[in-house]
Amino acid sequence: MTDTNAIQFRLRHTMLPVSDLERSVDFYTRLLGMTVLRRRSDPVGGRSIAYVGYDEEAMATVLELIATEGKPVAPWAGHIAVAVSDLKALCARLEAEGVSFAMPLKAIENGTSRFQANILDPDRFMIELNELRSGLNG
Amino acid sequence: MTDTNAIQFRLRHTMLPVSDLERSVDFYTRLLGMTVLRRRSDPVGGRSIAYVGYDEEAMATVLELIATEGKPVAPWAGHIAVAVSDLKALCARLEAEGVSFAMPLKAIENGTSRFQANILDPDRFMIELNELRSGLNG
Repeated sequence: MTDTNAIQFRLRHTMLPVSDLERSVDFYTRLLGMTVLRRRSDPVGGRSIAYVGYDEEAMATVLELIATEGKPVAPWAGHIAVAVSDLKALCARLEAEGVSFAMPLKAIENGTSRFQANILDPDRFMIELNELRSGLNG
Repeated sequence: MTDTNAIQFRLRHTMLPVSDLERSVDFYTRLLGMTVLRRRSDPVGGRSIAYVGYDEEAMATVLELIATEGKPVAPWAGHIAVAVSDLKALCARLEAEGVSFAMPLKAIENGTSRFQANILDPDRFMIELNELRSGLNG
């Protein structure tokens, strides 16, 4: 939180439009260790919504996954980055689950990460996975 | 942070590809109260990178803004949500600055927000602004 000209701010979530909410919830919870923090639906707008993340919404920035009936998912040029304590173990699990890799696990010579891999979520949004040299909060 | 099968995770950042790094840094710092936490450049890849946010990178999820020479910015169907303590004051300031609104400030009858407005960043990525009923961490 920062105070600028007496106005305070907090980053709440990043919204990703998804094509199949349960498929995406399964991906982010079972494979990437997130928890479903809240669900809501908007029947008028044909939207089903789930909030997933690693901490309570009041404390941390989370992902908002929104599936909208009849609305195709657009590609995204951005990505989400997730720090992981044991990337080799996670990648072995993701490979066994058939997850698509945009970049296989590799050692990084310099920089803050020791290992990195890039995977694609069910809608082919990119997730960068980093094992940091200085631990999870490095 | 969550421990799933002994692997720990943390959401580090959301990357937004931008067309003019300094224009975007100015927008997120001067208008949305973020701080520049780190900068780096990748001359080989023609990339200039800035990390902006409301807390230290080790503690909080931040935005990674990347400008790549000669690479146009693709549209994004997602959005970033920011909680704001005084949305009327902020919107007055944003209007005076000529920021584009995708949805003008409006009162919300039900739900967690008292007021909401949607603005567009310099690359027309959507930022949802919420004044929450229960305060900044509501």
